[in-house]
Amino acid sequence: MNHLLLKGMEMMGRNKIGAQTLIFNSQPRLQNWATVTGPREGKGPLGAEFDMVSDDPFFAQKTWEKAEQRLMQYSIELALEKQGWQTTDLDFFLAGDLLNQIISSNFTARELGVPFLGVYGACSTLAEGMATACILLDGGFADKVGISAVSHHSSAEKQLRFPTEMGVQRTMSSQWTVTGGGGYLLETGSSRPSEVSDWVITHATVGKVVDLGIDNANDMGSAMAPAAFDTVKAHFADTGRSMTDYDYIITGDLGMVGYKSLVEFFREDGQPTDKLQDCGLLIYHEEQDAHSGGSGCGCSAVVLAPAFLSKPEIKRILFVGTGALLSPITSFQGESIPSIAHAICLERRNG
Amino acid sequence: MNHLLLKGMEMMGRNKIGAQTLIFNSQPRLQNWATVTGPREGKGPLGAEFDMVSDDPFFAQKTWEKAEQRLMQYSIELALEKQGWQTTDLDFFLAGDLLNQIISSNFTARELGVPFLGVYGACSTLAEGMATACILLDGGFADKVGISAVSHHSSAEKQLRFPTEMGVQRTMSSQWTVTGGGGYLLETGSSRPSEVSDWVITHATVGKVVDLGIDNANDMGSAMAPAAFDTVKAHFADTGRSMTDYDYIITGDLGMVGYKSLVEFFREDGQPTDKLQDCGLLIYHEEQDAHSGGSGCGCSAVVLAPAFLSKPEIKRILFVGTGALLSPITSFQGESIPSIAHAICLERRNG
Repeated sequence: MNHLLLKGMEMMGRNKIGAQTLIFNSQPRLQNWATVTGPREGKGPLGAEFDMVSDDPFFAQKTWEKAEQRLMQYSIELALEKQGWQTTDLDFFLAGDLLNQIISSNFTARELGVPFLGVYGACSTLAEGMATACILLDGGFADKVGISAVSHHSSAEKQLRFPTEMGVQRTMSSQWTVTGGGGYLLETGSSRPSEVSDWVITHATVGKVVDLGIDNANDMGSAMAPAAFDTVKAHFADTGRSMTDYDYIITGDLGMVGYKSLVEFFREDGQPTDKLQDCGLLIYHEEQDAHSGGSGCGCSAVVLAPAFLSKPEIKRILFVGTGALLSPITSFQGESIPSIAHAICLERRNG
Repeated sequence: MNHLLLKGMEMMGRNKIGAQTLIFNSQPRLQNWATVTGPREGKGPLGAEFDMVSDDPFFAQKTWEKAEQRLMQYSIELALEKQGWQTTDLDFFLAGDLLNQIISSNFTARELGVPFLGVYGACSTLAEGMATACILLDGGFADKVGISAVSHHSSAEKQLRFPTEMGVQRTMSSQWTVTGGGGYLLETGSSRPSEVSDWVITHATVGKVVDLGIDNANDMGSAMAPAAFDTVKAHFADTGRSMTDYDYIITGDLGMVGYKSLVEFFREDGQPTDKLQDCGLLIYHEEQDAHSGGSGCGCSAVVLAPAFLSKPEIKRILFVGTGALLSPITSFQGESIPSIAHAICLERRNG
């Protein structure tokens, strides 16, 4: 092996700080994105800002699962089109979804035909994908990486809860799985900023699985809030930062019940809570009757860009993807809900 | 940002060669491993070489799913014990399995309590985990990474095929999901070799999804063989290597039907085929009636170490994890079987 090169790498020092945080010295660029949703999301507060809103929740397909796959495909293809990249420009495609065996991602990867890594982190999938993409870019393994995360209300209900035809009454603590997909394009830190984005990713704090024993699958927010708190605390400890270093700390997605828990955790910890935002609370109007708010891999994937990245006054955010790592079978078997949160630090760098 | 550091990284050049291959200049070390299986695998040709064989396919649990979780936990904990590492020594745990929402991995990550990234690549999961671990290690993001991949015959049958109680007759082309878990420990390339292993990982070729239209879920080998061929060909093109550069090229796991397809593909391509081996063909005796051979995330995870890594005469191998990226629902909806293969190049480096 090349000992000189190895020596050089050792001299560069490690790129992990503290127990859980990766530092990306090259600062990979988030160059562009596209958000695609179903009709219900289109009627929400961000409706006018999504790149594409379909009137047809089936996306012209015959099944909910095929609709979900199209949603993902549109999200990444539209992002590529906006950026002026070809599919073949991508070194890698990273994706995940809520369906068994992440089929939406697998079938989208088949259509794209680029090297593919499947990830699973429930609603933390976009953040996990961003962390993995940055590792690839910062390590010099790729120049351009595409990421997508998607969910579809009806495929998720069918698979994870009850057949939609049953019309089961939803508890007030339950969240509404978003029909939405977000495609995100990352490029190596030495690239120029795109016309629409000067956002770069500087850190990722990879979460541990946290489980405080919540076993109500209709209250995933309460299960995920401790994981979000754990990861944000780890991020602060590792980086020496605090709430005041960020314009917003954005969970995706705890919903109202989980958000209130998280606020309470930080309050008890003696910290300000005015920077806390949650993607699940930003996607539907209250009168849309989504109860505790939005959820699903697609929720933060469609909210993050229009609600935060597109706002010029926002300069630095911590995006905290939160995932409830249960399945129907673990709930049936009386298990509690293990949860995880991964935090991605995004900031603007012009040039 | 630190421009000098960025400059330094650019000077180091990119770590991707050709279209799909990552080169790990620091050569992360595969320091140790542990293999844990059920009773049927213990009666196979490698039975005496597994680290732990349970007489009880339930692993003292009440459900197949909980048994599978224990299997994964034992595999990683035993590997740590063999290596003399504590769980807290691990910077990251990467894992995946076949169950919906990769619950075996999520619940094992809960028990371990270290930063966790969930991966899904069906039976290519171990290879995907190794590639991701090497990216972390080579990029300086970690010193020590644990990986595990697991499957359980009965949880897989129950979820992906038929209830075992039905006693459905299996076709001759079907494979038998292995009850097994493998835990693998990787360490940064600048570390010393362990007492049991001088294996390092030098390259990973990340696969594209390939789908030639095979839609028989009882013949996944035929669906996966084209993906294995595609990735090995890409590896050769990217590295300038050929069959003769390897002691073995080991797919995991095509079974007999898929293995014969792969041999045929290489023969038509004018290449020698005597280096081709398949993990699915090495785990059961013919009289164990496994039909086309073993399969599942756990198959290659328990075969790779005893059949290849432990043999001192073997110096360089290409391990090609192969995954069939279907779900029962895509089969019901008439979809064909998208497949993927990721190749990991392992060679010995003493010192």
